[in-house]
Amino acid sequence: MVHNCEIRVRYGETDQMGRVHHASYVHYLEIARIEMLRELGHAYSGIEADGFLLPVIDLSIQYKGVVIYDDIIMVETKASINGRIRMDFSYRLWCGEILVGEASVQLACLNKGTLRPTALPDSLVRSIQTTQLKR
Amino acid sequence: MVHNCEIRVRYGETDQMGRVHHASYVHYLEIARIEMLRELGHAYSGIEADGFLLPVIDLSIQYKGVVIYDDIIMVETKASINGRIRMDFSYRLWCGEILVGEASVQLACLNKGTLRPTALPDSLVRSIQTTQLKR
Amino acid sequence: MVHNCEIRVRYGETDQMGRVHHASYVHYLEIARIEMLRELGHAYSGIEADGFLLPVIDLSIQYKGVVIYDDIIMVETKASINGRIRMDFSYRLWCGEILVGEASVQLACLNKGTLRPTALPDSLVRSIQTTQLKR
Amino acid sequence: MVHNCEIRVRYGETDQMGRVHHASYVHYLEIARIEMLRELGHAYSGIEADGFLLPVIDLSIQYKGVVIYDDIIMVETKASINGRIRMDFSYRLWCGEILVGEASVQLACLNKGTLRPTALPDSLVRSIQTTQLKR
Repeated sequence: MVHNCEIRVRYGETDQMGRVHHASYVHYLEIARIEMLRELGHAYSGIEADGFLLPVIDLSIQYKGVVIYDDIIMVETKASINGRIRMDFSYRLWCGEILVGEASVQLACLNKGTLRPTALPDSLVRSIQTTQLKR
Repeated sequence: MVHNCEIRVRYGETDQMGRVHHASYVHYLEIARIEMLRELGHAYSGIEADGFLLPVIDLSIQYKGVVIYDDIIMVETKASINGRIRMDFSYRLWCGEILVGEASVQLACLNKGTLRPTALPDSLVRSIQTTQLKR
Repeated sequence: MVHNCEIRVRYGETDQMGRVHHASYVHYLEIARIEMLRELGHAYSGIEADGFLLPVIDLSIQYKGVVIYDDIIMVETKASINGRIRMDFSYRLWCGEILVGEASVQLACLNKGTLRPTALPDSLVRSIQTTQLKR
Repeated sequence: MVHNCEIRVRYGETDQMGRVHHASYVHYLEIARIEMLRELGHAYSGIEADGFLLPVIDLSIQYKGVVIYDDIIMVETKASINGRIRMDFSYRLWCGEILVGEASVQLACLNKGTLRPTALPDSLVRSIQTTQLKR
């Protein structure tokens, strides 16, 4: 499954180059995966309430085009389970027909109390695995 | 006592107007009051560790000049105690000889456990009151 | 006319108090007035393309309630013309039935080339004045 | 040459996990390479004034440890020239003795007027190449 999420560029996300500051992409990726999880029935606030944290442990972004103020970015997100503890997200970011970025993010699952690695919640694993079967 | 704190403008704090985005001032004010409290012997991390939160409840900023990338802003901060629960900070921001802003911020003291208003820590009150006597 | 704009709180806008960092409100106010202007037919990108800048010169916010991750904030915005050069925006921010903030923002109109104050564009003034007549 | 740059974590850079939001690292990397260039005699504001832009085209970060509010991060930066148009920066981030991150960033050189790729300024290339000879 590919999840699609539209995000409009905020004025405060530009810099003096007249384009989006490159750190803003990191926020767009976070918003897109949170909306994907929400659509799968796993609001991130609920995941934390259940005693888990999902910090980012690896991030890479290739910037392939110019994004400016007020553009609407379409973020395509795919998710997969990586072992018992990690989730991988891969992204393509579009402005209309233009591919403006590709990215990947890895999360690790921690126990909120101990801050030690722990297995991802079963229901989350099943949701992601089910989406991978879909086209 | 007036506390002075120098802050250099980051590239990511500019916007496409070619100047500092106005929200960045809010961060500068926070940094300046935290450094003032540190100098008085009250690291903010210690205040939270002692069971208090000091959220901002009122903020006002007058923008009086242009600040651009790489400028060094001198933030002048004065603090005062306002009743048992509130602290007031007043600010002037300078770029060299140019007054680029004035601001005031009010904090309230909360009990970190109950999130209810509570009296400011005595030692913090004494420190601030002592600084008010100094020139 | 009161313009309504819904904004969902991003994870990256929280801080370690477990609530929205107070600087995030500044971005919400900006988004809300930009969406109001868009609805009136004045995309902010067009205003800049026409040779005007509208920097914030005065900002005040009263924080009246707690806003947390994933909350949806309803920002109510009213606009008015203040002389030839300035616009005033007043805001109320709601989380459901709870008033979580009130704010006011003043913008000044600058000529983008000279960076000197200049009269607000006529069409913008007329749009705002027309909205003030509406209930 | 390894350039060292100390950065203190701001309160507004934390999130509700009680640690630094992962996007903040992107700002730290930018600050560190700008300070490195400054020390080599190439203030970034001067590079732009000379008609060049250096946007980030590739970014990767491995998060290896927990960074919290008020920590002082030591960012170690190495720079190298990559062809006529690109510069590579590699980073290690430390909190005391703890390695909390590794990162790499690639910049491309654009002509500020045309926004087309252009050769890096000669003097900048020479400065970087000279630093690579040093231990």
